[in-house]
Amino acid sequence: MPEFPSRRPPRVRIENPWPMIDCGRFPVKRTAGDVVEVSADIWRDGHDIIRADILHRGPGARTWSRSEMRRIDAHLDGDRWAGTFTVTEIGRWQYTIEAWTDEFATWRDELARKVEAGQEDLASELLEGVLLLEQALDRIDDDSDRRIVERAIEQLRDETLPPPERHAVALDSLLGGAVERWPDRRDPSTLDAPLEVIVDRERARFGAWYELFPRSWGGLRGVREQLPELKELGFDVVYLPPIHPIGHRNRKGRNNALVAGPDDPGSPWAIGSELGGHTAIHPDLGTIEDFDALTAAARELDMDIALDFAIQCSADHPWLTEHPEWFNHRPDGTLKYAENPPKRYQDIYNVNWDTDDWQGLWKALLDIVRYWVDHGVKVFRVDNPHTKPTAFWEWLIREITATDPDVIFLSEAFTRRARLVGLAKAGFTQSYTYFTWKNTRWELEQFIGELLSPVQREVVRPNLFANTPDILHEYLQHGGPPAFATRLVLAATLSPTYGIYSGFEHFENVPVRPGSEEYLDSEKYEIKSRRLDGPLLPFIQTVNRIRQSNPALQQFANITFLDTQNDGLIAYAKQSHGNTVVCVVNLDPHHAQEGSVHVPDHLGLPVAFMAHDLLTDERYGWHLGPNYVRLEPPFRQAHILRIEGP
Amino acid sequence: MPEFPSRRPPRVRIENPWPMIDCGRFPVKRTAGDVVEVSADIWRDGHDIIRADILHRGPGARTWSRSEMRRIDAHLDGDRWAGTFTVTEIGRWQYTIEAWTDEFATWRDELARKVEAGQEDLASELLEGVLLLEQALDRIDDDSDRRIVERAIEQLRDETLPPPERHAVALDSLLGGAVERWPDRRDPSTLDAPLEVIVDRERARFGAWYELFPRSWGGLRGVREQLPELKELGFDVVYLPPIHPIGHRNRKGRNNALVAGPDDPGSPWAIGSELGGHTAIHPDLGTIEDFDALTAAARELDMDIALDFAIQCSADHPWLTEHPEWFNHRPDGTLKYAENPPKRYQDIYNVNWDTDDWQGLWKALLDIVRYWVDHGVKVFRVDNPHTKPTAFWEWLIREITATDPDVIFLSEAFTRRARLVGLAKAGFTQSYTYFTWKNTRWELEQFIGELLSPVQREVVRPNLFANTPDILHEYLQHGGPPAFATRLVLAATLSPTYGIYSGFEHFENVPVRPGSEEYLDSEKYEIKSRRLDGPLLPFIQTVNRIRQSNPALQQFANITFLDTQNDGLIAYAKQSHGNTVVCVVNLDPHHAQEGSVHVPDHLGLPVAFMAHDLLTDERYGWHLGPNYVRLEPPFRQAHILRIEGP
Repeated sequence: MPEFPSRRPPRVRIENPWPMIDCGRFPVKRTAGDVVEVSADIWRDGHDIIRADILHRGPGARTWSRSEMRRIDAHLDGDRWAGTFTVTEIGRWQYTIEAWTDEFATWRDELARKVEAGQEDLASELLEGVLLLEQALDRIDDDSDRRIVERAIEQLRDETLPPPERHAVALDSLLGGAVERWPDRRDPSTLDAPLEVIVDRERARFGAWYELFPRSWGGLRGVREQLPELKELGFDVVYLPPIHPIGHRNRKGRNNALVAGPDDPGSPWAIGSELGGHTAIHPDLGTIEDFDALTAAARELDMDIALDFAIQCSADHPWLTEHPEWFNHRPDGTLKYAENPPKRYQDIYNVNWDTDDWQGLWKALLDIVRYWVDHGVKVFRVDNPHTKPTAFWEWLIREITATDPDVIFLSEAFTRRARLVGLAKAGFTQSYTYFTWKNTRWELEQFIGELLSPVQREVVRPNLFANTPDILHEYLQHGGPPAFATRLVLAATLSPTYGIYSGFEHFENVPVRPGSEEYLDSEKYEIKSRRLDGPLLPFIQTVNRIRQSNPALQQFANITFLDTQNDGLIAYAKQSHGNTVVCVVNLDPHHAQEGSVHVPDHLGLPVAFMAHDLLTDERYGWHLGPNYVRLEPPFRQAHILRIEGP
Repeated sequence: MPEFPSRRPPRVRIENPWPMIDCGRFPVKRTAGDVVEVSADIWRDGHDIIRADILHRGPGARTWSRSEMRRIDAHLDGDRWAGTFTVTEIGRWQYTIEAWTDEFATWRDELARKVEAGQEDLASELLEGVLLLEQALDRIDDDSDRRIVERAIEQLRDETLPPPERHAVALDSLLGGAVERWPDRRDPSTLDAPLEVIVDRERARFGAWYELFPRSWGGLRGVREQLPELKELGFDVVYLPPIHPIGHRNRKGRNNALVAGPDDPGSPWAIGSELGGHTAIHPDLGTIEDFDALTAAARELDMDIALDFAIQCSADHPWLTEHPEWFNHRPDGTLKYAENPPKRYQDIYNVNWDTDDWQGLWKALLDIVRYWVDHGVKVFRVDNPHTKPTAFWEWLIREITATDPDVIFLSEAFTRRARLVGLAKAGFTQSYTYFTWKNTRWELEQFIGELLSPVQREVVRPNLFANTPDILHEYLQHGGPPAFATRLVLAATLSPTYGIYSGFEHFENVPVRPGSEEYLDSEKYEIKSRRLDGPLLPFIQTVNRIRQSNPALQQFANITFLDTQNDGLIAYAKQSHGNTVVCVVNLDPHHAQEGSVHVPDHLGLPVAFMAHDLLTDERYGWHLGPNYVRLEPPFRQAHILRIEGP
């Protein structure tokens, strides 16, 4: 005997749903208020009319809401269907697709075609309709709709009515509506399992970051005093490298010297001393009360304080004695410092992820994050996450966001693409990227193009830092102030989320040695005296204000690169909610570049329009097709053009 | 308390495996002897060395065999891995991927880097190695490998040996091999579930089909008498429209007349009479003994007899009285004939797939197929499968091929793409396509391009019929004999599987009326007197012999379109196992066309070579880059050029 399916399989097939990442293994990302478009190939055998809904539910909801799907034209002969729903609150949403045969609509459609063809002997068809309407009555829960259907049944049964009148009753749109509102969804087809959307707060998508070492700004109080000015400059997130006690043993000296001088403060990433570990604050920076005051002040200004989460311990970290089982040991029983042969990091101990007490270790790390969340930290910049188990991050981020869905995790994944994307899929809200190393037009277009690929655009949110304490690119070393302006505009307009590390606005550009991307006299190993007085700050403020007043600059995937007839000039349009911004940037910090920016028809702009440069307040008459541009250093490296009426 | 995973998750991630159709829901297709390439993104956190294997097993096998995967360069920074295995027998194969961290190789790699860097204090490292080697001994099941490892342990422990010698022992390639042969695959990562390959016999991929109505050839005996000649002409499959008794009630007359004359034989697709249904043979065609003799004769010649499987019943089919519950009824209780409003097919009754006795119906249909399989039929051409539940086909094909994996199902899916591909995914071995309607260069390149898309090339095997009893394209109606030559060469060289319906070789080209694709005096409704004497047959025989002697023409996805500088000429190269064939076809049946065929570097041909026209035995000196061609009707519509040495 053959083996049969356990029940008669539903007729409708749902294939290739999108968005769906790795067969539904990972969620896609959105921010609150976004519209999610869901599509799929939906079809069945034969000619019957089918219908499909998106089913969706917000965080914690048990019942599904529905949005109707409709055929769209462009793809696969009309078997592609799509619909949308809006994610209104942050947290983990679910969606799936339900599709079914609409027997009543099929019956009406066939009847209509027969009537149209002049067929007259349709008594049997009308009786079929009566059966379908009687079944509909079992579903209809609204008196008005019931009355419409009951009246139709009566008329369809009334043999004294001439057939044309009865056909008209059957085909009446009022009747169609009454039945359509109560669809017969017996035996629907669905996806095997619901798919998920992580919905974050807006800052996960849109924000300007400023990185500073608090020890160079007068500690936590000093930082707090800068917040209003940073806010005024347009920054939303102030990111602090680790603020914890720094180890003594094997402390690094200035310029990464192997031996520290007596006054050297050490690297903040050598975490832990006799004063505490990842939940302690370096006494030179202040107290936990100072910290609470800092996060409170930031909250007041609608800003975020971002903390560094670096899972590593100095030789003096309390865990080394409290939990030796969480660390790697040599065969002779001693602890094993970090190394990536032949490099040795004698000042740092990595945890042993293969420890038998992995649950204890994971829990302790979770507790660290929870501790800071409880002290008002809603943004974490995670150090080198690609050297820790991806499954750990997936677990930690899920645990934290289950109770605190407003927490944002930025992945410092300066690593190969598969790992960068893999960490984003596993849950990181945002990711550092290769941006600093992409300086030519081709590199930038290819780099952004990859982030726009179908999977990456759903899961990777790039945070384009123009510099970091570890990365002073040679473009900045040699390009002078125009290079800084160029990179600032690129970072701030290519992506809605970008950042700079303090010193950028002072055009700091001296490497520790030729060929290195490390800063000379790096702040990682010494204390600076910093103030918000860099000459580039007014320009940065202008750019940040432009970002804030143009919705097109608050999205990422809305980018279209434009031809410029000159590889020294990059141009791109961003469009959102009726707002169009065209950016033109001179990639050459030394020479004027001229070209023509081609505005293609498909942007949907009028034939002629004004291009309003928001950096200079100049207005240019532009049109579809080529538009001449010329940008000359040192003072004009970019146009940020808002497209306005003609 | 947080919730932990039930065990420590494995470190290696396996993503985007390929081939994988709809998340593994459907198998890919191969034929016996094929090499299956499997790839995936495989990576882990940190710097440890990882390894990966493909695990694969043939039909019915319980244990897995392994093939090693290796990094490939082209994609994703080297995180793409690939390997292969060969499917040696027909049936359903499974494969999956296993990946793990190679601790011993990681240790050796780190040690080597330290030795290279001149680090000397490596005693602790050597002790770690001893531990790893001792663990390896627990796995090693070969005396020779054991001895190598035991000796190494001894030497690594021997503190009288100077360190350089001990390092050399650790890094010795003999030791590496001995341990590598016994990998430590504790805690591997795997795919969630195995993926599948359907492996068919070669004819599923490569064969020439000839369709004939046996009643025009003297019945089953007459067909049997033609087999040697058909074999000689190069045909492999002889496809017969339904051979069952034909209904009387509402029988169609000549040229699809609504009322049949007394001598009209009716359409073979109006299946069933008082003489029987789908397992009976029309008495005018012969007996089941004749049929057995036919399939036996075919088998003897390594040919196949393909039967039509059309799930529909004439008004006189026994099932209508034996199983009224399998058919649609009107509200007044009478049976409901087939219709697609406003068209009515009063001579045909469709089964009711929604019957409560769906299992009985499915079983009866399965029994029909089994009956003919038992009578030697190993190829079924399935009529209109897209008007029957896809899940039914998936079930039926799986049931049949579970016991008879050599059975081939050709889907007559002249329908929208999603359904055509959906049926191929559900199990159909081959599919009819839109080929007959693709006659321009752009249409053909786009059409084949779609079949070469990543999913379709894994599941859809196109069977390019140049004509069918239902489709006489206007290209053939108006193009004269050159049009037939053009379409024959296209069908037979674009795809390894193609077919013609008899009459093609006689240049039959008269439609029933202008604008129709139906033949005048269609054989569907009357009996012809047919013989294998069409004037195109010698050409067809030549083309079939060329196909048989050139492996490149026995594959589908190995096609590369070449530029011709003239849309009237289409050109493509096919390459397989060192055999390169370039086809150039004049798409214009009325005029000479000339152009130049561009042979690109990436085909890997020498700079200059001979292009040997296998149709005419002429040889042309060709080279990389453009090569002049001219093709002129009526006698020269195509080159089939085998590339030979210079």
